[in-house]
Amino acid sequence: MIKHLDLLQNKFESALVNYSESLPDNPLHQPIRYILSLGGKRIRPALVLLSGKAFGAAEGQLIRAALAVEIFHNFSLVHDDIMDKAPLRRGKTTVHEKWDSNAAILSGDAMLIEAYKQLSLCGHEYLQEILDLFNTTSLEVCEGQQLDMDFENLTSVSVGEYIEMIRLKTAVLLGCSLQMGALLGNASKEDCKHIYNFGKLCGIAFQIQDDYLDAFGNPENFGKQVGGDILSNKKTYLIIKSLELASAEGRAELESIYFKNAIPDSDQKVKRVLELFREMKIDEITEQEFLRYFQLAKAELDNSSLSDVQKESFLEFLEMLQERRK
Amino acid sequence: MIKHLDLLQNKFESALVNYSESLPDNPLHQPIRYILSLGGKRIRPALVLLSGKAFGAAEGQLIRAALAVEIFHNFSLVHDDIMDKAPLRRGKTTVHEKWDSNAAILSGDAMLIEAYKQLSLCGHEYLQEILDLFNTTSLEVCEGQQLDMDFENLTSVSVGEYIEMIRLKTAVLLGCSLQMGALLGNASKEDCKHIYNFGKLCGIAFQIQDDYLDAFGNPENFGKQVGGDILSNKKTYLIIKSLELASAEGRAELESIYFKNAIPDSDQKVKRVLELFREMKIDEITEQEFLRYFQLAKAELDNSSLSDVQKESFLEFLEMLQERRK
Repeated sequence: MIKHLDLLQNKFESALVNYSESLPDNPLHQPIRYILSLGGKRIRPALVLLSGKAFGAAEGQLIRAALAVEIFHNFSLVHDDIMDKAPLRRGKTTVHEKWDSNAAILSGDAMLIEAYKQLSLCGHEYLQEILDLFNTTSLEVCEGQQLDMDFENLTSVSVGEYIEMIRLKTAVLLGCSLQMGALLGNASKEDCKHIYNFGKLCGIAFQIQDDYLDAFGNPENFGKQVGGDILSNKKTYLIIKSLELASAEGRAELESIYFKNAIPDSDQKVKRVLELFREMKIDEITEQEFLRYFQLAKAELDNSSLSDVQKESFLEFLEMLQERRK
Repeated sequence: MIKHLDLLQNKFESALVNYSESLPDNPLHQPIRYILSLGGKRIRPALVLLSGKAFGAAEGQLIRAALAVEIFHNFSLVHDDIMDKAPLRRGKTTVHEKWDSNAAILSGDAMLIEAYKQLSLCGHEYLQEILDLFNTTSLEVCEGQQLDMDFENLTSVSVGEYIEMIRLKTAVLLGCSLQMGALLGNASKEDCKHIYNFGKLCGIAFQIQDDYLDAFGNPENFGKQVGGDILSNKKTYLIIKSLELASAEGRAELESIYFKNAIPDSDQKVKRVLELFREMKIDEITEQEFLRYFQLAKAELDNSSLSDVQKESFLEFLEMLQERRK
């Protein structure tokens, strides 16, 4: 089953290499070639292809849309990494570190335009719809990044606000990717909506699951350091939910440990926060929550007019996400 | 005559105010409202309207295209000001100074997307052509900014390289603005080309003239400090041309004064550089050069199929630029 998605990812990867090699070898484009060469799972372009294939779209147009979303995604990484002062991306030096902030700003700008250039090649008859969807989505991604930065300076963020932030920053681009494939396959408005929602809900589930795995994941299966979010005082679903559920006393303890460095030793801090989370059953609550979003995603798929055979690759994607656990 | 252009600028200004007020009042959009409120001559949107009126385009669509180019232009200012570490823009605090670099990066990104959003409202039948033109132009503007930054670190830049930089950074957006109006007025391919070239050549002339006025302009008529480019060691048409024409000895003197601070006193530096420029007749040569570009621009207009009456507003624009002198 997983092979189907792998196949799409591989197909896209060679299109991306061709695209990257077609860029001029000059200071504006060298950072673009670099960031695109760092790999990544190519989930978004694979979703364009997956959805487009299910709805019977032409491959040439799908590849253009897939390139657009992947170039856009990498644009957002280049600019977010400047804002977050991140030294590494996918284990390699970030663009603004390898070159400088100016190069990262300007090459990022060029990438955003390059994404639109690929969209413009998707086919005249689809252009208006594709462009409208992409404009809405890409503005939402900017809004999500803004909220994420705003949250760093807020003392209190609600679960609802957090879900809204991850919807904008992460989830809508998954929905957009799937809907682009559907649009290029002349899917009905209803199916476009269901497939968009499927992607969006998977995205929200994925992000909550990511927060969960960062705290409760198996270090061998999870790519990052377990407890990394706790050590960097990051506002995640876990801490936001636990602060919401805690008594006044419990909240004060959590806040002082999580945000105010009350336990200076790193290992001790992680250990105590995880203890508190478990006491409050935050692990179970969080797991239930992301599973609930996965179920909501599946319901959207069920409500589409796709046949069982056509649904298979979407379900494969859903299962791949769900199986990424401790 | 000038009244016609004024009228278009005023018409656009009220559309821009409406647009700006329609933006959400949140941290992502506040810097956008701010930069758009700082004024400026609104030359580019006025050119969209001017050209569109001449070719008989619908006003609603023209306003959308005009908003797109003005939002794009301001996006490029916001990001360029970060890269150039500029404290002021139009006499007011720059976005990255008033907020911070992160806000300027992200709001700039949102502006670039907002420009595309306005383009998407230009009318379905024009979308492909408008988008292709805008994609090409906006990438060229990025290339121009990159060249401008590259030039700062180069010891030697040729006149040809300099003209190419100002073509990309400044001139193509004027050509694009005019061509957008023409496209929306269903102008022929030939007329689109002529009108684009008219704008581009005016843009090159304007920039060379700007370099000229910075050194030889009348301080009362020219908005900026005369000699500002000389004081900031800026590579302009004047210094590049004079280094090209100078003897080996003259070149050594110019380089040491202009770039290597051989005369530490500001007034003395400006005075001596202007003396050397005049000795080499750089003032006359430069004036001839920008007048030559203005003539080339006029020839493009003459070669278009526009009637004399239709040409009037373009000529008015040309004269307005030409009359901006010492």
